[in-house]
Amino acid sequence: MEKLSDIGERKAIDIISEIVDKGSEAIGIGDDCAAFDDGEDFLLVSTDMIADKTHVPVAMSPWQIGWYSVAVNLSDIAAKGGLPLGLVLSLGLPKNTPVNFFKQLVRGANDCTKTYDTAIVGGDTKEQQHLTVCGTVFGRVKKNEFMSRHGMMSGEILAVTGNLGKAAAEYLAMNLKQENKTYFKGLLEPKPRLKEGRLMAANKTITSCMDISDGLSSSLYQLAKINGLGFCINKENIPISPILKKIANVNKNIDVFDYAINFGGDFELLFTLPKNKFKQLQLSLKKIDCPVTAIGEVKKETEIIQKDGDNFSKILNKGYEHFKSHF
Amino acid sequence: MEKLSDIGERKAIDIISEIVDKGSEAIGIGDDCAAFDDGEDFLLVSTDMIADKTHVPVAMSPWQIGWYSVAVNLSDIAAKGGLPLGLVLSLGLPKNTPVNFFKQLVRGANDCTKTYDTAIVGGDTKEQQHLTVCGTVFGRVKKNEFMSRHGMMSGEILAVTGNLGKAAAEYLAMNLKQENKTYFKGLLEPKPRLKEGRLMAANKTITSCMDISDGLSSSLYQLAKINGLGFCINKENIPISPILKKIANVNKNIDVFDYAINFGGDFELLFTLPKNKFKQLQLSLKKIDCPVTAIGEVKKETEIIQKDGDNFSKILNKGYEHFKSHF
Repeated sequence: MEKLSDIGERKAIDIISEIVDKGSEAIGIGDDCAAFDDGEDFLLVSTDMIADKTHVPVAMSPWQIGWYSVAVNLSDIAAKGGLPLGLVLSLGLPKNTPVNFFKQLVRGANDCTKTYDTAIVGGDTKEQQHLTVCGTVFGRVKKNEFMSRHGMMSGEILAVTGNLGKAAAEYLAMNLKQENKTYFKGLLEPKPRLKEGRLMAANKTITSCMDISDGLSSSLYQLAKINGLGFCINKENIPISPILKKIANVNKNIDVFDYAINFGGDFELLFTLPKNKFKQLQLSLKKIDCPVTAIGEVKKETEIIQKDGDNFSKILNKGYEHFKSHF
Repeated sequence: MEKLSDIGERKAIDIISEIVDKGSEAIGIGDDCAAFDDGEDFLLVSTDMIADKTHVPVAMSPWQIGWYSVAVNLSDIAAKGGLPLGLVLSLGLPKNTPVNFFKQLVRGANDCTKTYDTAIVGGDTKEQQHLTVCGTVFGRVKKNEFMSRHGMMSGEILAVTGNLGKAAAEYLAMNLKQENKTYFKGLLEPKPRLKEGRLMAANKTITSCMDISDGLSSSLYQLAKINGLGFCINKENIPISPILKKIANVNKNIDVFDYAINFGGDFELLFTLPKNKFKQLQLSLKKIDCPVTAIGEVKKETEIIQKDGDNFSKILNKGYEHFKSHF
């Protein structure tokens, strides 16, 4: 009998798309958010579930679990250029959960919403065997500013905000027992790129955009598939987290590049735009302290190739996928 | 150390309300849905999480789990008089879940959305140790038709759609091994009162409304608390499920009334309106085959009293509450 572990998360989502009859007004499944027609705007909706046993590192405090569960949802609104309107949170908790743990978790969630000028407006608490937090965010974006995953053209620039491998660095630091607390900031308290997403959207030069939740390689494959195109990545241009490099300096067996492109949890924005629009966008984002790096080019061939000096090789889809085995 | 089992779900929700800074635009926590200002309308949002170990009877098929998880969300939109715009579903599934089980669950969810003219527009699948389904629904209602939980006045009629104890009957039938499949229809495939809610809202005579998910007694206490008022219920007027009566006929130890008012899962609408508006509303709903029964009156004393012939007694809050022990 075929199990989910045989097919993996991406195929499971394909099955949902086949069964579900989408509403005519919704852009729907396959993008970071569903988008609904609302006059001049789209209403945006996205949902994300995290569970303690599968997604939450042991080192994570209840406050950080709360922060994280809101941040990953806001990141989906950021990737579409939207403004968040609010969130609802469903909390599944074991009955022996300490009240103080519960309070800290709610505080973490609330602190993240306040940091990004939005609010928790409702929710549900249920008894569960294991801690489960399901957040649903909704937001709004002008139709002519909505950044879809679909729309990139051959010859355009592929770019990324910030740097990659922050979450990987923290994961490694935990396992390597290099327990410097500052190492853990990125994975446990991700910062959704909401301001950056809004600015990019207002620029109206982005042809496709998504957030990198499951790792760059996985995101590249998803973006390529939706658009029926491919990419050529310049390996030397990938912006790698300085902390990851630091850890690799003392642990020579760590392949920095492998972790930077295959480990999830960075929540940076990955996007495409015409070559002649790149400099201006980079400057705009620099003004709000967000580095942007061109890491490659959109190609009409449906492959994902990496250029390393004079060598070309294929990038494999090794990003995180639920139901499958990993690292 | 204090645990959630010491305080129960209702107190846990109070704690959330204290911590969470609500957005100025949202009506927010404490009602069936959060409601957002959107010009002439409110946007409605509600979320509900179900987990196999705590909320799903063993007899429930995967198709029924899917149906149920959508229906309970749509019921919240119904209680506010809204029209659903769409749903997002987060599925937490063990990796050894059979693909066929997964497909049936998605089909059940999709069939329920189609039955009520709406759509699943997005979602998330995650690996989990136990089956968890978190649905979030959003909808729309004209501001002057929105049916809040707050607004009832002393002297008004308290009424309910349909009858109570359907889910209890099915629960009892399961445990009594009277395994006639037709018994199980209400609990496992609840029918949200969307058409009825819309009609009530358009009538503009309803002063407060909620759905009865956790049992009548629990709903009475919630409605009374929000409004700072009380109720006097006529015991003989409570519309009891004919199936529950039938089961009690052959099992004399079953207290029909206790099950009808304290067992959850009926998803009928409980509402108040001025006395002189009741007949007309009852007639309107009769035209769409929905029976409505006046079961009591709003009182200025903050108690919940039951009148049984010439005897008066207090109704206790024995409805279902998560984290606490039950039946």
